Amino acid sequence: MPPRIVEVREGVLKKNDQLARELRLRFRRAGVYVVSLVSSPGAGKTAFLEHTLRGLRPRRVAALVGDLATDNDARRLGRSGAPVRQITTGTVCHLDAAMVAQALEGWELDTVDLLFIENVGNLVCPSSYDLGEDLRVVLMSVTEGEDKPLKYPTIFNSADVAVITKTDLAEAAGFNRDQAHANVRAARPGIEILETSARNGDGMGRWIERLLALSEARS
Amino acid sequence: MPPRIVEVREGVLKKNDQLARELRLRFRRAGVYVVSLVSSPGAGKTAFLEHTLRGLRPRRVAALVGDLATDNDARRLGRSGAPVRQITTGTVCHLDAAMVAQALEGWELDTVDLLFIENVGNLVCPSSYDLGEDLRVVLMSVTEGEDKPLKYPTIFNSADVAVITKTDLAEAAGFNRDQAHANVRAARPGIEILETSARNGDGMGRWIERLLALSEARS
Repeated sequence: MPPRIVEVREGVLKKNDQLARELRLRFRRAGVYVVSLVSSPGAGKTAFLEHTLRGLRPRRVAALVGDLATDNDARRLGRSGAPVRQITTGTVCHLDAAMVAQALEGWELDTVDLLFIENVGNLVCPSSYDLGEDLRVVLMSVTEGEDKPLKYPTIFNSADVAVITKTDLAEAAGFNRDQAHANVRAARPGIEILETSARNGDGMGRWIERLLALSEARS
Repeated sequence: MPPRIVEVREGVLKKNDQLARELRLRFRRAGVYVVSLVSSPGAGKTAFLEHTLRGLRPRRVAALVGDLATDNDARRLGRSGAPVRQITTGTVCHLDAAMVAQALEGWELDTVDLLFIENVGNLVCPSSYDLGEDLRVVLMSVTEGEDKPLKYPTIFNSADVAVITKTDLAEAAGFNRDQAHANVRAARPGIEILETSARNGDGMGRWIERLLALSEARS
């Protein structure tokens, strides 16, 4: 990258980090546990989140969802009954802390126990942007190929939990579970790995359980 | 985006466009037809390209493959016997014309009939970077969800041909073909759509046929 771009980019990241710190403080004060989701496009973030919002009842949950275009995801997630806001990024390939802060305007955070932030589908750009979250979850579907953590190591390395999605397709896709786990752990040693299927519900109960344990450990 | 970033970004794109024009001229003079592939991570670009390189024999083919990390793809594609070079981008989310020019150093382009450039798996960032290609192919697998063209319209709009991959998984994934085609065409009216499975070879013959027709129409 040309030196001038690097310099500007570092300035942007520094500003984002500061905004994210302010957000984190605000979330903590309001008692909100914040979870962000990152993955490739089509790894199943929205279906996973839809089940998660339902599974967390009667806790008070809310979500922000990022996309370049359309508010399809917000409408899908809205069916769960939870308050959901769409962040439309235009051509921007990731969410940043300023977009999150803007989307939260007018929301009373004290009325929320858990807030989810679904990032734009992208395994590269979101990795450098802190959104003030407590937990970053990286999702990877069984159909994407077991090598993804090796090819996109930064985003796996920046995550706290990895979720392997669409396990109902594992056999049809010839998914190699051991290889996938080994590759995730090569990118992020010691990371907790969960496996889920939003279609048949497998593993969703365990995920909800772990999520609640993690959120309670924080408070 | 802050105005300064926009300004710098426009400068970078302008410089890229100029480099891409030079590349395109060089390719044309050498008689090389250049095809670039863009998609999400895990949509099956490499498997598709592996079959394509084999299917084009005895024509003289070569490939450049972009990834953040690892040279797995170059090694995989090298098994086809074609000359292949890996471009490792580090944290950069797309290929640009300068990376392509650099990767071509020392190659005699006159000895190549078709050159493939596999971009970093990303449905956002590669869309703005002209690589000097004659044909841009966007791939989307049946497992990603039919809505991807609506959510990532720019990259579909910048493509010349759309390929729906992993059709062997269509039934297991509950793929809605009509919806997918309608969404691709909403993002890019009139675009040619092909369907393939690298696993069972379905549609690969038709793709090779279309590719050769397109490359011959150019020359």
